[in-house]
Amino acid sequence: MSETPFTLETLEAIVAKRAVSDDPASYTARLMRRGIPKIAQKVGEEAVETAIAAVLGDREGLTGEVADLLYHLTVLLRAADLPLSAVMAELNRRTAQTGLEEKAARRPE
Amino acid sequence: MSETPFTLETLEAIVAKRAVSDDPASYTARLMRRGIPKIAQKVGEEAVETAIAAVLGDREGLTGEVADLLYHLTVLLRAADLPLSAVMAELNRRTAQTGLEEKAARRPE
Amino acid sequence: MSETPFTLETLEAIVAKRAVSDDPASYTARLMRRGIPKIAQKVGEEAVETAIAAVLGDREGLTGEVADLLYHLTVLLRAADLPLSAVMAELNRRTAQTGLEEKAARRPE
Amino acid sequence: MSETPFTLETLEAIVAKRAVSDDPASYTARLMRRGIPKIAQKVGEEAVETAIAAVLGDREGLTGEVADLLYHLTVLLRAADLPLSAVMAELNRRTAQTGLEEKAARRPE
Repeated sequence: MSETPFTLETLEAIVAKRAVSDDPASYTARLMRRGIPKIAQKVGEEAVETAIAAVLGDREGLTGEVADLLYHLTVLLRAADLPLSAVMAELNRRTAQTGLEEKAARRPE
Repeated sequence: MSETPFTLETLEAIVAKRAVSDDPASYTARLMRRGIPKIAQKVGEEAVETAIAAVLGDREGLTGEVADLLYHLTVLLRAADLPLSAVMAELNRRTAQTGLEEKAARRPE
Repeated sequence: MSETPFTLETLEAIVAKRAVSDDPASYTARLMRRGIPKIAQKVGEEAVETAIAAVLGDREGLTGEVADLLYHLTVLLRAADLPLSAVMAELNRRTAQTGLEEKAARRPE
Repeated sequence: MSETPFTLETLEAIVAKRAVSDDPASYTARLMRRGIPKIAQKVGEEAVETAIAAVLGDREGLTGEVADLLYHLTVLLRAADLPLSAVMAELNRRTAQTGLEEKAARRPE
């Protein structure tokens, strides 16, 4: 019913809440308890599945695998106590810089 | 100057624009021309680097690797002509479902 | 009892035999039936686990993960109908070439 | 001139020798100096390339990628001071065990 779009920031908030859940059914809480090496492994695995689905041209599979990858990546950031905003600030900085380089490259010789 | 936050949707828009750039300095356009197998490979590689930085407890490295991973993942979605909104809808659906399961699990027997 | 050492060629022979087994307990036969994308995914996953065990300095874990990786890699070669000897010939060619380059590099200017 | 086949053990001996080389042209020695996280990253990357080549059905590419993967895996074992024979002993143990399980599974109920 809500018109607020679901973003990576929405996911970050959901993961932060579930990470500390004592609900035995919470996959997020269980994953957090297993620690960073296990979560990092899941990120690597989901990326391999994403790569394979993309190469196979399996669009439905790709949608699901990218969703899985983004979820596990968000759990990893939470486990590493790294806010998504720090990553976004880095992406902002990098794309702005590249933009300047691209503008410079377009200048006549 | 802008106060609009930089989000994955911002990155998607930047990548969509650069993907069709004829600027020889555009890494995004070059990557798009190399095709899905090469872009998928980069996604896998950045995920491995992300996993290793996380295990090493290298926070600065992790910030950069996650930024690289999200960038290449966005290029992969663009190459596969899959909108980020489709992935976000899937994440919304999954987390809502899990939420219901968690509520169900909390109910007394 | 045998004194013949267990090599990758031994593993290749075992995998070739089990690949066509109709024994329902055979993991190798089941994996073969799931096809190359699934086997390729397992190779990627075991490599991520190998990388993480190495970074953690977990020697026992590393032994097991490298064993898993070599096993799944051997199944992948079988599924792709590529003999291990072709890979070994390529490694022989590459290391010989590098040896020559190294010798060349040692020559006085 | 030699008729001895090139095996993973041959590669292990070559890598052990080059690992301590002071030849500036030696890629193996350079890689060893960069340390386990970098070598582990290369193992992960080559496995992703192996997986993609397999899914694409690119036999020539697959031969080269598996060769690259086995090379970097051998360097990783060297850097971790883990002999290949320990991994082979583990593979021997596992395949023997599976063999017994398969025999047991074939027994009438």
